[in-house]
Amino acid sequence: MINSKPYVIGIDMGGTNTVFGVVDARGVVLASNSIKTRKHSKIEDYIDELYTETLRLMKQLDVEDKIYGIGVGAPNANYFTGMIEDGVNLPWPTPVPFARMLSDKFGIPVAITNDANAAAIGEMTYGAARGIKDFIMITLGTGVGSGIVINGQMVYGHDGFAGELGHVIVKRNNGRLCGCGRTGCLETYCSATGVARTAREFLELSEEPSLLREIPVDEITSKDVYDAAMKGDVIANRIFEYTGNILGEALADFTAFSSPEAFVLFGGLAKSGELLLRPLRESMEKNMLSIYKNKVRVLPSELKEADAAILGASALGWEAKPATITMAAPASAAPAAPLA
Amino acid sequence: MINSKPYVIGIDMGGTNTVFGVVDARGVVLASNSIKTRKHSKIEDYIDELYTETLRLMKQLDVEDKIYGIGVGAPNANYFTGMIEDGVNLPWPTPVPFARMLSDKFGIPVAITNDANAAAIGEMTYGAARGIKDFIMITLGTGVGSGIVINGQMVYGHDGFAGELGHVIVKRNNGRLCGCGRTGCLETYCSATGVARTAREFLELSEEPSLLREIPVDEITSKDVYDAAMKGDVIANRIFEYTGNILGEALADFTAFSSPEAFVLFGGLAKSGELLLRPLRESMEKNMLSIYKNKVRVLPSELKEADAAILGASALGWEAKPATITMAAPASAAPAAPLA
Repeated sequence: MINSKPYVIGIDMGGTNTVFGVVDARGVVLASNSIKTRKHSKIEDYIDELYTETLRLMKQLDVEDKIYGIGVGAPNANYFTGMIEDGVNLPWPTPVPFARMLSDKFGIPVAITNDANAAAIGEMTYGAARGIKDFIMITLGTGVGSGIVINGQMVYGHDGFAGELGHVIVKRNNGRLCGCGRTGCLETYCSATGVARTAREFLELSEEPSLLREIPVDEITSKDVYDAAMKGDVIANRIFEYTGNILGEALADFTAFSSPEAFVLFGGLAKSGELLLRPLRESMEKNMLSIYKNKVRVLPSELKEADAAILGASALGWEAKPATITMAAPASAAPAAPLA
Repeated sequence: MINSKPYVIGIDMGGTNTVFGVVDARGVVLASNSIKTRKHSKIEDYIDELYTETLRLMKQLDVEDKIYGIGVGAPNANYFTGMIEDGVNLPWPTPVPFARMLSDKFGIPVAITNDANAAAIGEMTYGAARGIKDFIMITLGTGVGSGIVINGQMVYGHDGFAGELGHVIVKRNNGRLCGCGRTGCLETYCSATGVARTAREFLELSEEPSLLREIPVDEITSKDVYDAAMKGDVIANRIFEYTGNILGEALADFTAFSSPEAFVLFGGLAKSGELLLRPLRESMEKNMLSIYKNKVRVLPSELKEADAAILGASALGWEAKPATITMAAPASAAPAAPLA
């Protein structure tokens, strides 16, 4: 089947842009493009534009009848039901049966999951987690997402919502308010936004000089903190210590769950290199139960950033089956490995 | 194969007693017995006695050539390697290749795992988790153990040590010292021992009258707290509130990992009924991320206590394969379902 239909389409629906591309079995993005996610108030119009633009790519490559499946990474997308359950940033009403609608339009099987799970599948298929059967993907972006792989299989949970590790509580008392309505979630500390919040806190709590004081306090980004830290700024370095320490404590706890061989870090903050990784690894090892110590690797993503979103989603395209589209219950939905 | 070899042997190695029995495919313990775990200083002598006594049961039932496999639940037993890696309470040196030694002696395939995983397999095969493909077993005994089942498969992790949820940190600051050497572990609060520690703390921190003051403070057990609470004792009830609250917070976090359909509670404390379950459920729902609310059941074990240890271990016997004995690496060791 790989011979007759050797390509997949990957679609990553972000809050602003929807990027999509045609990918071959080796993970090469042959062509890609993007449309605005929020341009249309009706989902049908959004799907029409997505279809037109994707068809253009397929024609350009002459692969219209060689597409094995379509994989989609989208916020709150449910692998089991094919629904986008809750689209906080989307202009159309949700829940919506996105996999079925897309499949009807394209005449190609579609599988969908949330963006962090798509990233994990991409990393397993093409990136840092190739050959690793037990790992946890942590995406450090505006929020903190996660995708958990156990024994080579994506963990979806009984309802398709497993792996919300950004919403594990890391500060039980006096924790920061999270977008989810609770307080103390990991993502309020270890996302890009969390780092910016830490910067504001640290700058208020001391009078120490810092390059960050040159920026209006409400406009400081995690990138600003990174730049200052690289210039030797003491407060900026302390912010990375603080962030790495909390993330390390959390990863030590996560290890007690599935004893993964590795954590794979993805997203803007993950590119901070040793600034984040050194305090993170120190804290993780210090907080680890002894049987896990010095066994678990922390790896940065190996997916090229420009292609990562498309690649992650596209890898799921190899799992797309006509059955997935109408299947409502979990049953034995074990993903198959795409490449023999 | 079930027709020709329709029985399994379950062996549960506890710190004091080793209980064992012959079990049929429906989970009926046909005969059982026990020996003292710590009687022999040489493991060979322990295995000799275990063999002699088990053989006696098999002869009695006339099933010597009808045993499909032997399943063992033992502290720190590793499913992948067949080793008991660290036997804190055992009189012989560890690590020891227990599965291979037992298999050599009996001439029957042996599979081993830790006691909490054995309990989870037992519950899935014969108990409260029948038909549930995603659940987490929490054993509330002297410590807190756990066994995680995802998509019908036991989670062992890359090294066989997954599922140490009793050692997730629930108090990051000023937490209680745990036997593992760290502080703030779940098991220092929510085990039977943890409840007794809470009792001592609460009695010291107030002057309120309590039935528990009639007992020497260092001799108070979780059973004493239960008895007092059932008689309406205010402090004893507060201890259960406190315990249930912490356990509920922890289960809410665990849900963000694998989104299980249910938690199954096993062990002495789990029999406290609504005294523990009411505050636990309230706390769990209160602390749950919204997408998980009112979806996750908390079920008491359905295994008869007298048989539970044997049944749990025996269920693993259906997975025992000659290959397991010498297999050193994880590979694709997905347990097969025992009953068609």
